[in-house]
Amino acid sequence: MYVVVMAGGSGTRFWPASRRRRPKQLLTLTGQRSLLQQTVERLGPLAGPDQVLVVTGLGHADGVRQQLPQVPDCQVLAEPLARNTAAAAGLAAAWVARRDPQAVCLVLPADHLITDESLFLATLKRAIELARQEDVLVTLGLTPRFPATGFGYIETGQVLDETPPQVRQVAGFHEKPALEVARQYLRSGRHLWNSGMFAWRAEVLLKEIARHLPDLAAGLAELAPSLGTPSQEAALGEIYPRLPSISVDHGVLEKSPHLRVVKADFGWSDLGSWEAVAELWPADPAENVCQDGRLLAIESQGNVVSAGGRLTALLGVKDLVAVVTDDVLLILPRQRCQDVRQVIDSLKEQGLDEFL
Amino acid sequence: MYVVVMAGGSGTRFWPASRRRRPKQLLTLTGQRSLLQQTVERLGPLAGPDQVLVVTGLGHADGVRQQLPQVPDCQVLAEPLARNTAAAAGLAAAWVARRDPQAVCLVLPADHLITDESLFLATLKRAIELARQEDVLVTLGLTPRFPATGFGYIETGQVLDETPPQVRQVAGFHEKPALEVARQYLRSGRHLWNSGMFAWRAEVLLKEIARHLPDLAAGLAELAPSLGTPSQEAALGEIYPRLPSISVDHGVLEKSPHLRVVKADFGWSDLGSWEAVAELWPADPAENVCQDGRLLAIESQGNVVSAGGRLTALLGVKDLVAVVTDDVLLILPRQRCQDVRQVIDSLKEQGLDEFL
Repeated sequence: MYVVVMAGGSGTRFWPASRRRRPKQLLTLTGQRSLLQQTVERLGPLAGPDQVLVVTGLGHADGVRQQLPQVPDCQVLAEPLARNTAAAAGLAAAWVARRDPQAVCLVLPADHLITDESLFLATLKRAIELARQEDVLVTLGLTPRFPATGFGYIETGQVLDETPPQVRQVAGFHEKPALEVARQYLRSGRHLWNSGMFAWRAEVLLKEIARHLPDLAAGLAELAPSLGTPSQEAALGEIYPRLPSISVDHGVLEKSPHLRVVKADFGWSDLGSWEAVAELWPADPAENVCQDGRLLAIESQGNVVSAGGRLTALLGVKDLVAVVTDDVLLILPRQRCQDVRQVIDSLKEQGLDEFL
Repeated sequence: MYVVVMAGGSGTRFWPASRRRRPKQLLTLTGQRSLLQQTVERLGPLAGPDQVLVVTGLGHADGVRQQLPQVPDCQVLAEPLARNTAAAAGLAAAWVARRDPQAVCLVLPADHLITDESLFLATLKRAIELARQEDVLVTLGLTPRFPATGFGYIETGQVLDETPPQVRQVAGFHEKPALEVARQYLRSGRHLWNSGMFAWRAEVLLKEIARHLPDLAAGLAELAPSLGTPSQEAALGEIYPRLPSISVDHGVLEKSPHLRVVKADFGWSDLGSWEAVAELWPADPAENVCQDGRLLAIESQGNVVSAGGRLTALLGVKDLVAVVTDDVLLILPRQRCQDVRQVIDSLKEQGLDEFL
C-alpha cells in the first residue's frame, strides 16, 4: 500500500503566515512540527517513508523534500500547475500502478489535524482492508459535530458492517449546505462530512477515471511510461496542463456506483481559518489565545493572536484576529476570518505580489 | 546664550516604540530624524552646536551623544536619576553660570513638534531678548487651538508689547483643567497653554531658585565647583539624589513675581500619544494612518498603525491603534491611547522588565 499525501493547497486562508511559497501544510500551526510532517508521522504505524507519495505544486516540492527528508525525493510528485484532486489522485494512482497495480492508495490531505490517533489508524485500517477486498472507492465520512456549512456531506445508505468503524453504502453527495439544511443533515444521522480522505486500489481508481473522465485517463496513460524515470518532469510539464481540472469527488466519486463510506469518529479539524486553529491553542480566562509568545491582555476578550514570538499587549479590544510576520501585520474581526481572501484579492489587484 | 534641551522624558506613552533605553525624544516619529535631532537642528539659526546643552538621564546619555555628534560630549549632562524640571533647569543654569552668569538659557523640551519654524525662531528671539534685557523668567504661552484638558494653562495679565510676538504679564498658572473650564479658558483669550519652553539668564534663574527652593539652591551650589570638570559625574551621583523633585513651573515660576509670557502662535504639538502623532502622518480617505510601510485597509476607518515597515492589512476594523516592534505587538482602541500606562504597570507587576 501507499499513502498518497495531497499537499497541493495554497493555504490563502492563513495569510500572512501562509504564502505562495509557504502554504498551510508547510506551516507549524500546532505543536512543533508542520502539518505535513504531522500527517506523515502519524501514519508511521501503517506505512514507512518508502510507502509515502506526496503530490504537491512545483513551487513547494523543495519545501516538502526539506521537511520530509525520510521520504525518497522521487516520491514527491511535483505538479507543474494545480489541476485539482482528480488529476492529483490519478497521477498518484498511475505512479503506484507502475510498481503494483493492486497496491492500495490511501489518500489523505496534508493539512488536517487529527486529535485521536489510535482511532484514526483503526479507521484507516478498515478503509484499506475494504479497498483491498473489493473493487470499490472507499471514502471516510466524519460524524458531524455541528451543522457546518463549510463542508460537503456524504449521504449514507445501507449499513454493511455494524462493527465500528462502521461501513455503509453511499446514497449521494451534497454540496456545502445552507445552515437550515446543515441542521437537518445533523439530525438525520445519515449524513457525514466529506473528509477528503479515501482508499482504493490504484487500478480501481484508474478504471473509474477511464469510465468517467476519459480526457484525464488519456493524459494519465500518456504520462505513465515516464513516471519514475528521468523524463517524468518534462512529461508532466507537457501533459499536465492539458488535464481537466476537477475534483475527484465531482469527477469520479459522484458518478461511480462502486462506493463505500467508512464512518469516522476520530477528533478532526480541517484547520480552515485562524479561528479554527485558535480552538486548539491554550486560552486565557478571557478566551484570548496566542499561538506563540507571551500575551498580556487587559480588559480584552476573545482575541486570537499569532505574533511571531513577540509579547502581545492587548488593551480594551474584543474578538480580533491579529497576525504578525516578518513583513506583514494583519488585523480583522474574528468573525471575518473567512474574508482573508478579500485581502489576497486586493493584493493581487494592486500588484503587491511579493506579499502573496 | 545657550539652548538647554530637556531630554529627560521616559516616553512611556509611546510604548512599545519608546522604551526605557529608547525614550520618545530619541525616536523618529515624524520625518527622517529623531525628535531630539529635529529640536537641535531647528535651532541652528539661533545657536551653534557648541551652544547646545542637553540634560538627559544617565541611561540615555550615550544615545543622545550618538544622535548629536556635533554637540561636545561634555555638554550632554547626565542626571543619575530623574529629579523633575526644576533640578534639570537648575543644573543647566549652574553649568552655564560657570562659563558666563549673564548668558541666556533658552530651555526647550526635546520631544515636541514645531511645524512653523520661522515663526518659532522669531518668537524665541523675542523671548531671548526679553531675558537679556530684564531680570525676568520668560515663558512661552501657546495660543490654545482647542479646549485641551491635558495641558496646564498660563493666565495672562497686562499686554506689555502689542507687536507680535506679543509680550504679557503673567497673572497666574492653572493645572490641567476640566473640559468645561478648558472651554472657558479658550473663550477668554487670556489663557495660553503652558509649553514648557522658557528663557532666562542663568543667574536670574539661580537667584529665583535660591529664593523659592533653598534645598535645590544648596545642592546646586555644592555641585557647581565640579561642573565641567572630571569630577562632575561623581558629584552628580552623590548630590543629585538629594535634590528636591519638583517641576520648575510649580517650584519656581508659580512663586515668582518676575515673570513674562511671550505669546506663541507657531504650529506645535507635544506629541503626547500615538493618537497625537497620527495627526501628523498622511491619512487615507478613510482616515487610516500608517507611519511607515504600506497600508491595505478594507472596510476599515480611523486606524493608526506603526508596523515597522511591514505591509499592514486591515479588514473590517475601526479606530484601533496597532504598533509592532521587534519584540512587541500592541493593539488598543484609539480613544484609549492615554491608557498605555496600564500596560506598562502590568509589565512591571509581572516582572517583564525586558519589555519596559
